[in-house]
Amino acid sequence: MSIDDVLARIDDDLPAATDRLLDLLRIPSISTDPAYKEDCDRAADWLVADLQSFGIEASKRATPGHPMVVGHVGDPGKGPHLLFYGHYDVQPVDPLNLWDRDPFDPQVQDTPAGKVIRGRGAADDKGQLMTFIEALRAWKEVKGDWPCRITFFLEGEEESGSPSLVPFMRDNADELKTDLALICDTGLFESRTPAIVTMLRGLLGEELTITGPDKDLHSGMYGGLSMNPIRVLSRIIASLHDDQARITVPGFYDGVPELSEELEAQWQGLAFDHDKFLSDVGLSTPAGEQDRTPLEMLWSRPTCEVNGIWGGYTGEGFKTVLPAQAHAKISFRLVGTQDPQAIRQSFRTMVQEMLPPDCEVSFSDHGASPASGVSVEDPKFEQARAALSAEWGIPAAYVGCGGSIPIGGYFQDILGTTPMLIGFGKDDDAIHSPNEKYDLESFHKGIRSWARILEALT
Amino acid sequence: MSIDDVLARIDDDLPAATDRLLDLLRIPSISTDPAYKEDCDRAADWLVADLQSFGIEASKRATPGHPMVVGHVGDPGKGPHLLFYGHYDVQPVDPLNLWDRDPFDPQVQDTPAGKVIRGRGAADDKGQLMTFIEALRAWKEVKGDWPCRITFFLEGEEESGSPSLVPFMRDNADELKTDLALICDTGLFESRTPAIVTMLRGLLGEELTITGPDKDLHSGMYGGLSMNPIRVLSRIIASLHDDQARITVPGFYDGVPELSEELEAQWQGLAFDHDKFLSDVGLSTPAGEQDRTPLEMLWSRPTCEVNGIWGGYTGEGFKTVLPAQAHAKISFRLVGTQDPQAIRQSFRTMVQEMLPPDCEVSFSDHGASPASGVSVEDPKFEQARAALSAEWGIPAAYVGCGGSIPIGGYFQDILGTTPMLIGFGKDDDAIHSPNEKYDLESFHKGIRSWARILEALT
Repeated sequence: MSIDDVLARIDDDLPAATDRLLDLLRIPSISTDPAYKEDCDRAADWLVADLQSFGIEASKRATPGHPMVVGHVGDPGKGPHLLFYGHYDVQPVDPLNLWDRDPFDPQVQDTPAGKVIRGRGAADDKGQLMTFIEALRAWKEVKGDWPCRITFFLEGEEESGSPSLVPFMRDNADELKTDLALICDTGLFESRTPAIVTMLRGLLGEELTITGPDKDLHSGMYGGLSMNPIRVLSRIIASLHDDQARITVPGFYDGVPELSEELEAQWQGLAFDHDKFLSDVGLSTPAGEQDRTPLEMLWSRPTCEVNGIWGGYTGEGFKTVLPAQAHAKISFRLVGTQDPQAIRQSFRTMVQEMLPPDCEVSFSDHGASPASGVSVEDPKFEQARAALSAEWGIPAAYVGCGGSIPIGGYFQDILGTTPMLIGFGKDDDAIHSPNEKYDLESFHKGIRSWARILEALT
Repeated sequence: MSIDDVLARIDDDLPAATDRLLDLLRIPSISTDPAYKEDCDRAADWLVADLQSFGIEASKRATPGHPMVVGHVGDPGKGPHLLFYGHYDVQPVDPLNLWDRDPFDPQVQDTPAGKVIRGRGAADDKGQLMTFIEALRAWKEVKGDWPCRITFFLEGEEESGSPSLVPFMRDNADELKTDLALICDTGLFESRTPAIVTMLRGLLGEELTITGPDKDLHSGMYGGLSMNPIRVLSRIIASLHDDQARITVPGFYDGVPELSEELEAQWQGLAFDHDKFLSDVGLSTPAGEQDRTPLEMLWSRPTCEVNGIWGGYTGEGFKTVLPAQAHAKISFRLVGTQDPQAIRQSFRTMVQEMLPPDCEVSFSDHGASPASGVSVEDPKFEQARAALSAEWGIPAAYVGCGGSIPIGGYFQDILGTTPMLIGFGKDDDAIHSPNEKYDLESFHKGIRSWARILEALT
C-alpha cells in the first residue's frame, strides 16, 4: 500500500476525524483556572483512550499540575525515533459575551471562506494535535504497521506557563530523548504558505501589585493628599517604552542580535503584507520600534506588553474610591540570547526605583523562557519541507514566529533533541480570543501533511 | 417641658433608636447597581412608615430613578421653616472579601475606642439621617407639639450622582423652598471637633474607553506590531499630573481662588495633624501639589483621581492577550468657580490629542457639579454653632470639606435656600470602604445635637 492509499483513507475518514475532534473540544480544559482541574484530567483521559484505540501504548502520567499523556509504538530499531508534541489545554474564554456561541459547544460552520471548526481550542492546540494523531491512525489502518519508533507527548499546561514540563522532561529524559521532535502548535505563513518555524521568541511573565494606603479610601476625603496606586502604576507602565517605542528596562537589549544578511534577504522575499495583517484586526500603523520593519517587530525584536490591568471600582456606575492597590500583568517577548532572569531583575529594580513615598510593590513570577533558534542542517528539514510543498502546492518556507513556544528550546537544551515546528493555523483563527476557529482545510491538509512527512522521514 | 427633658428622653430611647437604625441598615440599598433597585424602593418605604409612625405626613415620590421620601409637619406660620436632608442609598460593598462580616447584617460591636455600629451605610448616610429623625421623634414625644414648620427630604441616588435630584427640586420648588436646609452628611473635624461645613468641593466624573485593535489579540502574534490600548491609557493617566503633582488639563486652574488671609489664619488655628490623618491609613507623605499645605490639598485645592482601571486579562494565572480595549473611571474635585463643563471638554480634547494612530476613545459622563461655598452671615449659623459647642463641650468650627456634596449648591441655586451642613462622622468610619462603621457616640450625641439646634433656631 502506497502513501496515496494513506491519503485516500484520510480523505474518506475526515467526517469521523472531525467528530472525534469535536468530542475533545467539548471538554473545557482551561489550565490556568483551578476551577477546571477535573476537565483537564478528563481531556487527558480522552486522549489516552483514543491513542489506545489504534494500538498506541499510552498512559496518563501524574505531575504536580495537570497530567502528561505519553504513548509509544513501533520497533525501536527501525528508522528514526520520532516524537510528536501538542498540548490539550486551552486558554480562558472571557470576555464570554463576545462569543457567538458556547465556546465548549463546538460546531462545523459554513463561512464565505469555507468550512471552519468553531470552539475554544479548535486551533490552539486540540485541532492541531489531532492532525498528527489522525495521520498515524490512517497510516496504521492502511499499512497495518508503523514506519519507525514513534512517541507521543501531550501536555496540559502550555497555556499556563508549563510549570511541570521541565521537571517531567528531566525525570523522563531517557524515555523522551528521540531523533526529532515534531511540534504542532504554529501556523501557515500569511495563512497560505506552509512553514517550518526556526526562530522562536522567549517569554517572561510578571505580575505586579502597587500598594498605597492600607485600605480603600474615599477620594473626596483623601484625594489630593494621599498617593493613588493607579497613578503610580500608570506612570510605571507609561515609562516602559520611550517615544521611539524602544523598551527602557536597563540592559534589556543585551543579547538582541541583528539579522544576518541572508535571513534579511529571505524575509524580504516573503513580501510580508503588513497592511493586510494589521487591517485584518482593524489597525493600520506598526506600533513597534520606529526603525524596524514589521516582520522584524514580529519575529526578531523583543517586546513588552501589558496583558492585563485592574484596580479600584470597575463595575457599573461610579464609585469615588481611592483604591489601596493597583495591579498589572506584564509580559516580555525575548529574542537571541536575552537572559530572562537578568531582565526580570532589572525590571523589578526599575519599578522599585520609580515608587514614590508610601508605595510598595510586590511581584509574582509567571514563568520565563529564553528565545530559541534551530539549525536546519539536518537533512530531515529539507525532507519535511519537500513533503509540505508537495501537499500544499506552494514551496514551504523557514520562518520566524512572534509567539513563544518554549518547548522547542526545552527539547534542545534538556534532551538534545532537534525540534521541528510545523503547524497549520491561519492568522484569523482568533486563538486566545472569542470565536476561535480552525479551518477544516487546515485540519484536513494538516493530517495529510503529517502522512507525507512521515513517508519522507522514514 | 424643657430641652433637658428632650435630651433625657433621647438618652432613654437610645437602645430602641439603635434597633431602628439596624433595621434600616439591613436593606441593601446600593443605588449605583441596577440589581438593587427593589431594595432602594424598600428603604424608601421603610422611611415613609417610620416618619408616619410619629405623625409626619410622609410619602414616597416617584422619579425616573430611585424614589424620594418627602414629609411635612408643623404649623406653616410658626417660626422658621426648616428642612432636613439625608440620603438612604449606600455605596457598593466590593471588595467583599475584606469585610469582617456581611455588610448588610449590621451589629453593635465593642471596640477599644468604644461601641460602634458596623455595616454598610452606618455612617454614610443612614446613621446620620436617623440622627435628625430620632431627635424629632423625641421632641414630639416630650413636647407633644412641633416648634416650627418642618420638612424632610430624603434622597436615594446620592451615591450614584443624584440624576433625579435637580429635576425633582425644580418640579417641587414651592414645596421644598424653606428658610434653612439642614444637611447631615459630613463629619466632625479630626473626629473630635463639631463642625459646620461652609466650603465644599464639586465633582466631575468621566469614564473613558480606549480602543485599539478590533478584537483581543494574541500578544505573541501581534505584540510589538500592534498598539496596546493599556499602554495608551497608562500614558494618558501618567500625563494628568506633572512632577509637582499639578493637574495638566489645559485651563484646569481657571477659577481656583487663593485662600483669604482670614480663612488661612483660622485653618492654621485648627492645628490639623496631617501626620496622624495619613498614618491612620498607612501613609506618611502628602501627595498633592508640592507648594500647598495638607488642609489646602483636602479642602481648597482641586484634584484629579483615577477611581478605577481595567483592561485585558485580570483573572488567575496569566494570559498573553493584547486587549482590544482599556478603561478608566476618573474624577475631578473642583473648587471656587471652576467650570465643570469647560473642564470636561478640555480633558476630552487633551485625551483625543494624545491618541496614537489606530486608537479611538469614547467617553461617558458620570455627572458634574461645581464647588459651593456658604456665607455665615445669617445669625442661624452662630445659633447652631453655639448649640453644637454646648453639646460637645468644644467650640464648634466652620470648616471646608474635601468631599463633594453638591446638594448644598442645589439648595442655594435652585431654591434660594441657605444650606447648613452638620454631621457627626469620624475619620476612621471607613465610608465607601470595607467594614464601614458609625460610632454609637456619633449617633447618640448627633441626635442630642439636633435637639439642641432645633431649640436654638426656634
